[in-house]
Amino acid sequence: MDTWNEAGVREAPGAGPLAGLRILELGHFVAAPFATRLLADLGADVVKIEPPGGDPVRQWGEQANGHSPWWSMHARNKRCVALDLKHPRAREVVLRLAAGADALVENFRPGQLDRLGLGEAALREARPGLVIGRISGFGQDGPYRDRASFGVIGEAMGGLRYLTNHPPEETDLPPSRVGISIGDSIAGLYAAFGVMAALWQRDRAGGAPGPFTLDVALTEAMLSMMEGTLPEYGVFGTVRQPQGSRIKTAAPTNAYPTRDGQWLLIAANSDPLFRRLARVIGRPELADDPDFAANPGRLRHVERLDAIIADWSRERDAAEADRILGEADIPSTLCYSAADIAADTQYRERGMVRELDDPLIGRVLHAGVVPHVPEAPGGIRWTGPAVGAHTDEVLAEAGFDGAEIRALREEGAVR
Amino acid sequence: MDTWNEAGVREAPGAGPLAGLRILELGHFVAAPFATRLLADLGADVVKIEPPGGDPVRQWGEQANGHSPWWSMHARNKRCVALDLKHPRAREVVLRLAAGADALVENFRPGQLDRLGLGEAALREARPGLVIGRISGFGQDGPYRDRASFGVIGEAMGGLRYLTNHPPEETDLPPSRVGISIGDSIAGLYAAFGVMAALWQRDRAGGAPGPFTLDVALTEAMLSMMEGTLPEYGVFGTVRQPQGSRIKTAAPTNAYPTRDGQWLLIAANSDPLFRRLARVIGRPELADDPDFAANPGRLRHVERLDAIIADWSRERDAAEADRILGEADIPSTLCYSAADIAADTQYRERGMVRELDDPLIGRVLHAGVVPHVPEAPGGIRWTGPAVGAHTDEVLAEAGFDGAEIRALREEGAVR
Repeated sequence: MDTWNEAGVREAPGAGPLAGLRILELGHFVAAPFATRLLADLGADVVKIEPPGGDPVRQWGEQANGHSPWWSMHARNKRCVALDLKHPRAREVVLRLAAGADALVENFRPGQLDRLGLGEAALREARPGLVIGRISGFGQDGPYRDRASFGVIGEAMGGLRYLTNHPPEETDLPPSRVGISIGDSIAGLYAAFGVMAALWQRDRAGGAPGPFTLDVALTEAMLSMMEGTLPEYGVFGTVRQPQGSRIKTAAPTNAYPTRDGQWLLIAANSDPLFRRLARVIGRPELADDPDFAANPGRLRHVERLDAIIADWSRERDAAEADRILGEADIPSTLCYSAADIAADTQYRERGMVRELDDPLIGRVLHAGVVPHVPEAPGGIRWTGPAVGAHTDEVLAEAGFDGAEIRALREEGAVR
Repeated sequence: MDTWNEAGVREAPGAGPLAGLRILELGHFVAAPFATRLLADLGADVVKIEPPGGDPVRQWGEQANGHSPWWSMHARNKRCVALDLKHPRAREVVLRLAAGADALVENFRPGQLDRLGLGEAALREARPGLVIGRISGFGQDGPYRDRASFGVIGEAMGGLRYLTNHPPEETDLPPSRVGISIGDSIAGLYAAFGVMAALWQRDRAGGAPGPFTLDVALTEAMLSMMEGTLPEYGVFGTVRQPQGSRIKTAAPTNAYPTRDGQWLLIAANSDPLFRRLARVIGRPELADDPDFAANPGRLRHVERLDAIIADWSRERDAAEADRILGEADIPSTLCYSAADIAADTQYRERGMVRELDDPLIGRVLHAGVVPHVPEAPGGIRWTGPAVGAHTDEVLAEAGFDGAEIRALREEGAVR
């Protein structure tokens, strides 16, 4: 195991490809903080401004000693400054911090930063060429601009929720959430990408200096992922429908029950794969049966085919069935739970499940740094800090002297 | 409507923040081509190398005149070169194209490019400092490196599939797909982000020149989005479970049936929101009922509460119920289908649903460019090209003269 796999809050400061990049985060909840986590993981210096009461995510999920394991990962590698944005002196503090930043990432409601005197013009007066990444529900303009939003609205209006279900002939239940706020995280990922695109252009030799603003909407980030859904509607008028765990155009590929109550995904949806599968499940004759030999037949008789495969899977535990299929080189997988992820060999060997000692909560597991950059791996330099942990340090770097910082704290502007 | 909303294959060449960036794609299916679509949308010059028979996605989904609407969007803004990588002269062609590129993005199985003589050393001999973005199922090393993979395996092993379901007491059905190859697209998004991070460092004044390789695994990209799932398991041993369309920690937030057979998402999971909702559904007394006044009570009695809300929603069409809730400032939304997306005002006004004339298939709808960059908007310069549409143009730029190109074509190396 590499050194970064060993327990310990700080690891050797992996430079990462974003070493030298300075980011100011005015974010809360998931989307903007997720974008800056990705930047910080690759080595950027991220200063997060949050209210003296803390980002609400600090209270989300199960708590240990009053601290959230999610926060431990969500805010890792960031420096946390607690600042009351409504305080009369807050504007000055933000502008002085922005003066030293390459980019700012925020997810306030459109217009809110302008009302605090922190519009794009003011920020760029403090820091010419500042790249500004903005994440909102519906974007910075248009008729829905001022509507309340949150991740589920992005997922639903982007088209994901409609499709996340079994066909109506199989269930009366509504579409399912995917269990995470994926709409927020995808928007954050687009923002991180866009910020780096803008910074590349601004900072390269001969590049256009900008300014560049990234206007990311949750709805639009989701829609951008929807593949042929919109183009096919445009050409054919076809409205894509939910397909459960099958794929409409190929069989067999589905989730099959196992003896130990799990779901095993098997994808044997080509003729050679199906021939191998037929042999593995002890029904080699199926590969020559006119009903099943080719994909069109397998699709026509998919209910019968899936029942035959399920008869085989139901007599085995998931791990055993998965192993048998793997040996026959048939793509299959368990549906990994958190426990399966934590135990997985590949994740461990690649540093993608890391054991850390968080000083606020003790031993914790984090997902690793994505993408992996072998020549300059990012890393987990520290876990999510306490509220205001870096207020003094960051303000001092921005040129506030000790007396000024004390005064700001006494006035309640910072914590 | 802005000019880019009007029908017409080419639009005014929006520069985009990635104008001047040159990308070589050795991709197929979804992940790498999605990464380069994002780069091309923001203005990069993407040269895609595909086999003379074409990328398989050209055949995916419904076809119009033998062409795929999905392809129209998937390959837009790219220049397509058809090259048989197994041909003895292919290596020379790729290396000469790489010599003019800033970055290469690929999603072959690990080791496959090395076997073609196109390993990292060879590529960087042709182009020192070439950024190489690699996408694979499990990463470029580790015990699973050589396993077959595809999107669903990334989703399942990353932990998403396990959670995309209703609780077992509500359904016997397996977890659902989300209806798109989201594992591939998320990996592509991480690759696009990583490539820009590496390019920023390489190209900025005083930056480290690299080389930088981005090693993106589908499984790891998915895992990186899973929020508190892994940290909470690490601290408490808690295995996060599927929750259907509810959220475990807040109520009411769910999908409710409507008279016209749709599902309306309502999130009234704070005390003030719930008070407004109670009034809207004609049951104002609920907000003062000890069973429902506060969140813990609402969670304890969530079945009864959801049934009451469903009694209201079932008597109205979805659009009407959504309008009533919107007027009361209660977050709600329909689950948008492709038809809803195409008709949405905000998407149209923001250029996120665009009508284009694809010369191969006629009128088509595309999703717009994300992120929106108001100062330098990317754009749709052309739709997904035919196989080999830019072979001659790109080879000529790389210094092949007409006779050489003819010879390559006669030998079957290019098309």
